[in-house]
Amino acid sequence: MVESARRARGGGGAARRAARSAVSFETARYIERNIPNFEVLTEEALEIIEHNADTVLEEIGVNFPDNPDALALWREAGADVQGERVRIPRGLARKLCATAPSTVTQVARNRERDVVIGGKSLVLAPVYGPPFVRDAAGGRRYATMADFEKFVKLGYMSKWLHHSGGTVCEPTDIPVNKRHLDMLHAHMTLSDKPFMGSVTEPSRAQDSVDMCGVLFGEQFVQDNTVMTSLININSPMTFDDVMMGALKVYAENNQACIISPFIVGGAMAPVSVAGTLTQVLAETLAGIAYSQLVRPGAPVIMGAFVTSIDMNSGAPTFGTPEAAHITYGAGQLARRMNLPYRSAGSFNGSKLPDAQAAYETSNSLNMGLLSGVNFMLHACGWLEGGLVSSFEKFVMDADQLGTLHHLARGVEMDENAQAMDAIREVGPGGHYLGCAHTQSNFREAFWKSDLLDYKPFETWSDEGARDTQALATARVEKLLADYQQPALDPGIREALDAFVVERKAAEPDSFT
Amino acid sequence: MVESARRARGGGGAARRAARSAVSFETARYIERNIPNFEVLTEEALEIIEHNADTVLEEIGVNFPDNPDALALWREAGADVQGERVRIPRGLARKLCATAPSTVTQVARNRERDVVIGGKSLVLAPVYGPPFVRDAAGGRRYATMADFEKFVKLGYMSKWLHHSGGTVCEPTDIPVNKRHLDMLHAHMTLSDKPFMGSVTEPSRAQDSVDMCGVLFGEQFVQDNTVMTSLININSPMTFDDVMMGALKVYAENNQACIISPFIVGGAMAPVSVAGTLTQVLAETLAGIAYSQLVRPGAPVIMGAFVTSIDMNSGAPTFGTPEAAHITYGAGQLARRMNLPYRSAGSFNGSKLPDAQAAYETSNSLNMGLLSGVNFMLHACGWLEGGLVSSFEKFVMDADQLGTLHHLARGVEMDENAQAMDAIREVGPGGHYLGCAHTQSNFREAFWKSDLLDYKPFETWSDEGARDTQALATARVEKLLADYQQPALDPGIREALDAFVVERKAAEPDSFT
Repeated sequence: MVESARRARGGGGAARRAARSAVSFETARYIERNIPNFEVLTEEALEIIEHNADTVLEEIGVNFPDNPDALALWREAGADVQGERVRIPRGLARKLCATAPSTVTQVARNRERDVVIGGKSLVLAPVYGPPFVRDAAGGRRYATMADFEKFVKLGYMSKWLHHSGGTVCEPTDIPVNKRHLDMLHAHMTLSDKPFMGSVTEPSRAQDSVDMCGVLFGEQFVQDNTVMTSLININSPMTFDDVMMGALKVYAENNQACIISPFIVGGAMAPVSVAGTLTQVLAETLAGIAYSQLVRPGAPVIMGAFVTSIDMNSGAPTFGTPEAAHITYGAGQLARRMNLPYRSAGSFNGSKLPDAQAAYETSNSLNMGLLSGVNFMLHACGWLEGGLVSSFEKFVMDADQLGTLHHLARGVEMDENAQAMDAIREVGPGGHYLGCAHTQSNFREAFWKSDLLDYKPFETWSDEGARDTQALATARVEKLLADYQQPALDPGIREALDAFVVERKAAEPDSFT
Repeated sequence: MVESARRARGGGGAARRAARSAVSFETARYIERNIPNFEVLTEEALEIIEHNADTVLEEIGVNFPDNPDALALWREAGADVQGERVRIPRGLARKLCATAPSTVTQVARNRERDVVIGGKSLVLAPVYGPPFVRDAAGGRRYATMADFEKFVKLGYMSKWLHHSGGTVCEPTDIPVNKRHLDMLHAHMTLSDKPFMGSVTEPSRAQDSVDMCGVLFGEQFVQDNTVMTSLININSPMTFDDVMMGALKVYAENNQACIISPFIVGGAMAPVSVAGTLTQVLAETLAGIAYSQLVRPGAPVIMGAFVTSIDMNSGAPTFGTPEAAHITYGAGQLARRMNLPYRSAGSFNGSKLPDAQAAYETSNSLNMGLLSGVNFMLHACGWLEGGLVSSFEKFVMDADQLGTLHHLARGVEMDENAQAMDAIREVGPGGHYLGCAHTQSNFREAFWKSDLLDYKPFETWSDEGARDTQALATARVEKLLADYQQPALDPGIREALDAFVVERKAAEPDSFT
């Protein structure tokens, strides 16, 4: 039942129209790094952190409140359970984690857009969770379902984005207990890229699995990972029963979860890099071990959402050096566990898509690539510490994601790349613009932004002296105007519509 | 005759005034990295590039036009000289480079601000060369000496900037043949950080040496490096006689030169990373070898100013992945020659200090740190492909340079950093804001911007909803208002004034 690249088979007319359009529907394959990872921690430091994390689990333990099933599983596995506190003997959590696969392949309904999460890969997904949106024309306002749909369309149109994401913004005009249905419906019908499921209630996770059954076929879902969903740990060291309930649904149905501390250092973890890494490791060890207790072999991704804090104001701060150290270090820890790694994103604390937003975002995107991240949620569109999904910043960041693809390629060293004939041909004092090597290589040689301004000053000035935000506003408008919905089997579409109608009718609206 | 930290000895009143001021006159020590370098090239790739560079020097050679003295030196050293073309037998250039010191210590008149260039160090210097300036109030306009002085003051006031630089902008209102005197006078009197000399004529290099003689004492200059000056190679493979004349003056007087290709890839070098690195290595090998022919042991820095091009418009592009690959690779090549390395900077092609400027700048600053750069010219203030020195961007970038300092510190792993007592104290579900470890560590734990906005949305909105440029405008104004000239021996000051008057009177003005 998987819909495979119907548009590509759509005949010559559509193909010619697409080729004439300035907008590309092409999506780059997920990144496979041909460069080393940057490793900030020594072997000795890693061993200290691993030892300390085990000490935390053994001496202090973690809490699984309101979750007798989880406590029973832990007790059975050999943990010391007292009340909601679970103390895990040294080595046990790591041993339990060993059944988790080192790589997760998430299937998309357009199979050309399947992604592999793990090893040298990097999969890029958009911002997740903001209750507000912003654009230049409308300013900052509560997000609606109409905004949500626009972001899904922009994600579908973004060449460097491999994944449609999940809650690209919170559609606050839809009841809390029903918005997951509309969100999933949008990802499934407006895009053909892979997506995330709901985690806000176990029943909504089940709805996500059931809707995927409609889209992909029920057996297909049991046999393949078709969702990667975000399970946050309530740091420090607390595993919320709602999140754990959603994790259980996904694990039992062979669907992937990112198990991720959500840490503002100094508030939810110690105000030091080594201390924070210790806690991150202890928490992810416990969470991933639990996923394997639920179902050995369940696909999981080790997450680390960690940033620093401005102790004067209590505000989280982004793109900072300490966040980079933690991201690099957590990558090393994940690789030593042979687990896929989620971290980094277009993080920033700015209120506007301005220079602050871009400095902080670039710092974070670059460290994400070099730290070996396999799944980067929030890779574009994040603004104001995650309170806002920005339309302009979405396309600005999505353009910058192209730099990560080209960086990851590494340096070609074949004879053509060595270019000795070009150097001979041009010689001292010459120039390379017209030489044969340049002519045959220039198209692919250098990454080029599709958004930023490279024009001469006078041209730029004549065209209105636009800043990056103004260029981005125009790009958002153009992408949305050019958007074409990917084809979907009408029968599946009707079944998805019917599923949403039926589930919505089954309970009264709730806005809390 | 070196002026040492007179202000620090200036008594209690001045110290108290300084402490009350919100502006810091403190300058961070140059960076000493406690993190590894990022290495994008394999050993095999490095060997291919080194082999190819020697092939270029041997087969194709380099040009030293209008420079019979240089040709004679090369002939004597064993090169094959025909006309202005110098072909250098395999291995000779590298052998000649071996007498260059691996580290340059540049002395400042405030000895606390001496910098070491080489090894694990990173010294940050401001933008160099733009004929235009820009600020929000005045827009883009030709630079004047008044602008130049403001930039020197901003550099002096910038905590994360170790070096006063050279031509922070071109003072176009001063005759071309005399502006170097005013520029040096400004660096010497308005700042006490190290600075660069003139390279636009050998006679102006000599003026620079002579003025340093007045400031530091003539013998002191012969015994110490007090200037680091920028010698550009006219790529491909041409060594301009004016630049070589300036290099000769500096080398003979024990002053440091950066010997640096200036390459827009695809125009002045092949349109491939490996080919460009080959040419960079060949050119710097030849240039540094020449410096050692002039004076064995002359202090030099291997430079690489390399960026990519937009082949559609011919515009250079900045902060791109290919520029990063070249910067990483050239760092590896420099370290294999045991030479200090200059590259990277606040590069961008934007017309405004907006998101584009910041994305591209962050990409370049981060790669500069990780590629092992020892001297980063253009570390702040660069705009519009180097045509413009921007006041706002100067302070924006200078603030971001703080992130490089903190990144370079690496991760502390002592008992305090491990923070196990904090994790024990707080436990599952607690928070760290009030715990003992946080209280005793928070001041130094996280880097914090002095410029960017961390305020709640409502506060930010009430205060005028300012973007980064607006915050920077206010900071430029405050820094210039708070500026206090560093003390200088009045006798030296008078002698510097007299030197400038006398040299200016010695020849007629020229504006070409």
